[in-house]
Amino acid sequence: MPSPIHIEEYLRGVSERVNDQLRLLAAEWKRTGPKPLTEAVEYALLAGGKRLRPALVLASCEALGGDVGDDGLALRFALALEMVHTYSLVHDDLPCMDDDDLRRGRPTVHKAYDEATAMLVGDGLQSLAFRHLLSTGDARAAPLAALLAESAWRMVEGQALDIGAEGRALGEAEVLALMAAKTGALLTAACAGGAIAATGAPSGLDRVGQKLGLAFQIADDLLDLTSDAATLGKRAGKDQAAGKATLPSIVGIEEARRRAQAACDEAVALLAPLGAPAEPLRALARFVLARKK
Amino acid sequence: MPSPIHIEEYLRGVSERVNDQLRLLAAEWKRTGPKPLTEAVEYALLAGGKRLRPALVLASCEALGGDVGDDGLALRFALALEMVHTYSLVHDDLPCMDDDDLRRGRPTVHKAYDEATAMLVGDGLQSLAFRHLLSTGDARAAPLAALLAESAWRMVEGQALDIGAEGRALGEAEVLALMAAKTGALLTAACAGGAIAATGAPSGLDRVGQKLGLAFQIADDLLDLTSDAATLGKRAGKDQAAGKATLPSIVGIEEARRRAQAACDEAVALLAPLGAPAEPLRALARFVLARKK
Repeated sequence: MPSPIHIEEYLRGVSERVNDQLRLLAAEWKRTGPKPLTEAVEYALLAGGKRLRPALVLASCEALGGDVGDDGLALRFALALEMVHTYSLVHDDLPCMDDDDLRRGRPTVHKAYDEATAMLVGDGLQSLAFRHLLSTGDARAAPLAALLAESAWRMVEGQALDIGAEGRALGEAEVLALMAAKTGALLTAACAGGAIAATGAPSGLDRVGQKLGLAFQIADDLLDLTSDAATLGKRAGKDQAAGKATLPSIVGIEEARRRAQAACDEAVALLAPLGAPAEPLRALARFVLARKK
Repeated sequence: MPSPIHIEEYLRGVSERVNDQLRLLAAEWKRTGPKPLTEAVEYALLAGGKRLRPALVLASCEALGGDVGDDGLALRFALALEMVHTYSLVHDDLPCMDDDDLRRGRPTVHKAYDEATAMLVGDGLQSLAFRHLLSTGDARAAPLAALLAESAWRMVEGQALDIGAEGRALGEAEVLALMAAKTGALLTAACAGGAIAATGAPSGLDRVGQKLGLAFQIADDLLDLTSDAATLGKRAGKDQAAGKATLPSIVGIEEARRRAQAACDEAVALLAPLGAPAEPLRALARFVLARKK
């Protein structure tokens, strides 16, 4: 029997590695680039997120016996994916989008700096993601960059669906399609990318990522309904306030919980053939559901 | 003696090819993606620009004997670069940046649609640029994607310098650094990318691109000072109105003209060893200076 994974410890370890790497990169960008842009990029990147996407990349790579070291392609992809995720948060918080003042308990980038800088931080982070991923000249990065581009576009499609959905009664199928694009695309890319870094192909982990993404988004919607801003580090109840349809608002809280559990179980079942090396990824699947923020 | 290039005809030919390809791509995006996002992407991309960057890519590739056909890497890079350029225009026009209502004689994207859509159009176009460039799985696209990412980040650095410069007296060196980043980065990448598509290396055309970029930007600043909105298809005199330092405002119109001519001459001189295949690129260097809009 493999020793059980302490998921909080695992995530803390990933966070420390990711934060160390991002700090080094930000120092380099600040050395050569203009302020306040590069300071604002650092502010956005080092805001203390859970680093779930990097954790999924590394756990997926590990599940297939790949290299998760500091010089490996997996960590490089993990950082690039986190940069894309961070750019989307910075732009999402802008007045013309969700108009949020608070993110992870701190002022959002356009509040700490200004709107123009926040716009450029997001734009620049997307470029920096691809630059970092491709900077070694390693040809094996090309399919990962293609995956990053595909999932980043899918995410934008999801955000556009989300905007179009406000104040309109969505059906269940529409809500599921929106979730699969807006949040699911990057989470799926995390698992697929970890697998590609290890084996050169998604190796079925894209399907695991889809299940995980669904469980994650339902859990997120449930937290928005049932938690508070102090716990979340951001406004609670904002989906309802914005008139946004979510799976819980359509099928009810209990049924939504059941669906999230089912998606998590399916992800774990898909990982069964991979044995002990997939234990961190299994623990992450369970964490996605059990997290309190 | 090579027959002289009719530059207007050459540019018209490139524009038609680029527009045909972009129309095909936009049709595909509209087929699978949400409206109005994908319609707004098409609106932004097919607004009738000069397609100078794609022309520079193709002329640079041709100058080194590379493949400029529809299935070649050069055209793929040319389209990706035009997508990045277009994303920057859409975001630049937003109220928190330049706040422009008119672009190429038509309402800007946030005027024709709304701010949130314009934000997502820009974000999405950057992703689509990398996706298109990398979509064939051709490993030779990796260095071009790295170049695209590097120049896109440099452009954002330039925009940040530009914002920081408003209302402040810039020195000549600062203005030159700003120009090299904001406009020069993509124009340099156009020439370098065409060369990489042909030979696998920049082959000195990055320096040609730098000279061309400088000549282009000075010409742009001179047009802003001396032309009118009807000719330009956008507001004239906006640099002065915004209190932006430009090279003409620092060294005077005549000296700026002389510098632009010198940069153009240097670009042409650098191309001398390449002989007849570089004739379109030489003609573009002269066009950059002589254009009326």
